[in-house]
Amino acid sequence: MKIAVLGTGMVGKAIGSKLVSLGHAVKLGARAAKNEKAAAWSAQCGADASHGTFAEAAAFGEIVFNCTAGSGSIDALTAAGAANLNGKILIDIANPLDFSGGMPPTLFVSNNDSLGERIQRAFPELKVVKTLNTVNADLMVNPAQLKGDHDMFVSGNDAEAKAFVKEILTRWFGWKSVIDLGDISTARGTESFLLLWLRLWGALGTFNFNVKVVR
Amino acid sequence: MKIAVLGTGMVGKAIGSKLVSLGHAVKLGARAAKNEKAAAWSAQCGADASHGTFAEAAAFGEIVFNCTAGSGSIDALTAAGAANLNGKILIDIANPLDFSGGMPPTLFVSNNDSLGERIQRAFPELKVVKTLNTVNADLMVNPAQLKGDHDMFVSGNDAEAKAFVKEILTRWFGWKSVIDLGDISTARGTESFLLLWLRLWGALGTFNFNVKVVR
Repeated sequence: MKIAVLGTGMVGKAIGSKLVSLGHAVKLGARAAKNEKAAAWSAQCGADASHGTFAEAAAFGEIVFNCTAGSGSIDALTAAGAANLNGKILIDIANPLDFSGGMPPTLFVSNNDSLGERIQRAFPELKVVKTLNTVNADLMVNPAQLKGDHDMFVSGNDAEAKAFVKEILTRWFGWKSVIDLGDISTARGTESFLLLWLRLWGALGTFNFNVKVVR
Repeated sequence: MKIAVLGTGMVGKAIGSKLVSLGHAVKLGARAAKNEKAAAWSAQCGADASHGTFAEAAAFGEIVFNCTAGSGSIDALTAAGAANLNGKILIDIANPLDFSGGMPPTLFVSNNDSLGERIQRAFPELKVVKTLNTVNADLMVNPAQLKGDHDMFVSGNDAEAKAFVKEILTRWFGWKSVIDLGDISTARGTESFLLLWLRLWGALGTFNFNVKVVR
């Protein structure tokens, strides 16, 4: 499958590398066509890996991963272009982290709105599915490394898009349990979970953890 | 031990009944001395159970549980009186839920502040420990009913107070795992978790669940 990964940070590279390892063709998108990190990544990952602008990546991908920083996500998607995005599934991994007040960060949108909803409102024809934003980059694509079962969440308005993303999570990335929280407004829940995640990171001294919902 | 439980809702009655069953003397505090729910509860629970105003309960208790609605907690504690509270441990179970916009509720304070911090700022001599606010009333005092291990969190500025509350959680209420998140500002994490908890309630169709942190 041809897949766009927007963002050249730890998350974008982890997702991109996993997808290439599964045999997919991945174009990593950045603000500028000549992005050093993206060039180094695609050189390292072989013939199925390429890079380009946000617009080139979005045009290339049959599906799109949003791995940009939350503060730049709307701008990145605007640069990608609605015409290159419309009708596609956007797997939105970004978190609305605000580092302007120091550590730990706060959220620049929360409680009665979410970044996932903002993206969906800005691009109504995009099938936004929020997921993977509740764990660190390495865990996203290697969930089996933790001792015991744990859960991933999905939020989105389009049932078929969510079903497809569930397949990606379980068959491609190895997630054993995926909980469908409901429409994209439920991204308020998983994005706000970051406020607990950040404190758990501080208390546990590791970000290599996740939660399991116990009934 | 003589214990004050402020609030006559499901949480106050669940906590009060559990404490009485353990042999403690509990005074349930309400806005008015003649509160029907509190009177019915104390009549049902026997000689160790009594009720009165917030001030009477706070004066009675060696420790105090805040089981009032979050929107009324500061008012309830003000009515209880700083002189009756000062130097004591306040186990703060309240959540800052705002139902004014319908269901699911939002939070009237979150992200860069919390109800736990507001209470601590309003009553600097009170040893505020935030805990139990991440599960439903029945689970608070019966954690063993779920299938599998799961975690409770504590937040607070006073290490001795937190150690005492950990004893209450483990020895009295039966919690097997208690994670100390840090100072009272970490209540932002557990209070904001409610935004995910509410969506999980919707998705799972039950509020009889909790999370386990998996490493």
